[in-house]
Amino acid sequence: MTSNYKLIIAYDGTRYFGWEHQPDKETIQGKLETVLARMCGKDTVDVIGAGRTDAGVHARAMVAHVLLDTEMTPDEIRDYMNRYLPDDIAVREVKKAGDRFHARYNALGKTYRYTLYVGDSKPVFDRKYMTVPDFVPALDAMCAAAEYLVGKHDFKSFCGNGRMKKSTVRTVDKIEIKRNKDTITITVHGNGFLQNMVRIIVGTLLEVGKGTYPPEHVQEILEAKDRRLAGPTAPAQGLCLMKVDYD
Amino acid sequence: MTSNYKLIIAYDGTRYFGWEHQPDKETIQGKLETVLARMCGKDTVDVIGAGRTDAGVHARAMVAHVLLDTEMTPDEIRDYMNRYLPDDIAVREVKKAGDRFHARYNALGKTYRYTLYVGDSKPVFDRKYMTVPDFVPALDAMCAAAEYLVGKHDFKSFCGNGRMKKSTVRTVDKIEIKRNKDTITITVHGNGFLQNMVRIIVGTLLEVGKGTYPPEHVQEILEAKDRRLAGPTAPAQGLCLMKVDYD
Repeated sequence: MTSNYKLIIAYDGTRYFGWEHQPDKETIQGKLETVLARMCGKDTVDVIGAGRTDAGVHARAMVAHVLLDTEMTPDEIRDYMNRYLPDDIAVREVKKAGDRFHARYNALGKTYRYTLYVGDSKPVFDRKYMTVPDFVPALDAMCAAAEYLVGKHDFKSFCGNGRMKKSTVRTVDKIEIKRNKDTITITVHGNGFLQNMVRIIVGTLLEVGKGTYPPEHVQEILEAKDRRLAGPTAPAQGLCLMKVDYD
Repeated sequence: MTSNYKLIIAYDGTRYFGWEHQPDKETIQGKLETVLARMCGKDTVDVIGAGRTDAGVHARAMVAHVLLDTEMTPDEIRDYMNRYLPDDIAVREVKKAGDRFHARYNALGKTYRYTLYVGDSKPVFDRKYMTVPDFVPALDAMCAAAEYLVGKHDFKSFCGNGRMKKSTVRTVDKIEIKRNKDTITITVHGNGFLQNMVRIIVGTLLEVGKGTYPPEHVQEILEAKDRRLAGPTAPAQGLCLMKVDYD
């Protein structure tokens, strides 16, 4: 009997070409679909994720759904997948979901976190999950700049896809910037994100933190609706999808 | 002018043949000495560590000393080293030390930590710093077994070097076994450790945790002074040198 399952997946995106399957390239979706097809004795299985992460981006809790025809219990599916998936992809949870549960359409919000190392040394153990700027960014200026981005805005200046035809209006509820001992984390929550949006936000906040332009210039960047005015796209390796919200 | 410097070093030991330099092999000591020799324009520099970690073992705070003839400040030395060392070795701190400071002879104690993943999934982000047993060990039995090891004992049964000629008597002050959410950490503090000693202790505690023999059997293992009676040597990747104590 075919049932709909909700999966929660963690991955170290370092060596992958992102979430979405691509011919002849290693992707997270591709790995998951291969293992599940084998498990069910099918040629193909479609795993639908809550979103697509870019090449090199990590996830602690990506959510996906998949229709499976199997007699196995959810825990047995999880254990089977973890046994056959590479050690940089883990299935944290498998649960039966209602037939109408759709990981992308039902997603209400997402939390991403970007981590910067700003200590005096180097981040040996977490080096693949942080980026190391070559200056110490001014936190207060970054926080002030972030306030201009919170709210419902046209984020066209923060969209990596120049040929985006659909609406580039999104709502960002919260940008929290915290200094821990040797790291700065930038946590962004919103109802949806454009391509590279979080990384361009981080790249722009870092320009402010470096003093390239003042916090209030971010308002002009937003209004210009021109990608060229925002900061560079921050490197993928510092970014991690932390959580996807559902009802 | 030549001064004596104390270094605190962190490393991910995964791809190294241990601390101690060996011809034609990548080692931590070898990497440090190469960078410092270059910095000082010398052919060789001797970096003396507090101890030797095995191939694949990690350190958060290995301590070493080195005599250097340089005009650079300690922070400049640290920054130079971090720039030229690979990204899996970091110098956390460089300080001038008294001429008589010796990282090995003056070390009063060491703390090692072994980490096991015992959750339902897989440890994606820390997978190189944990081992995953194929059973869930019984914590209470392991704690009871550990008590037999605390104190001053002849640890010959827990020594990986069968041809060890010197005394195999050591004092273990504390073995702390803690379950966090998905991990068990075994923290061992002692005045000195024999080759593979912590890993054989962990391997033996795991046999108790699996039920192969009861906690009190550890007393017999100690008394037998025979390596063959103790458990297997636990894999290197779960082990990390956490701290070295000095006066």
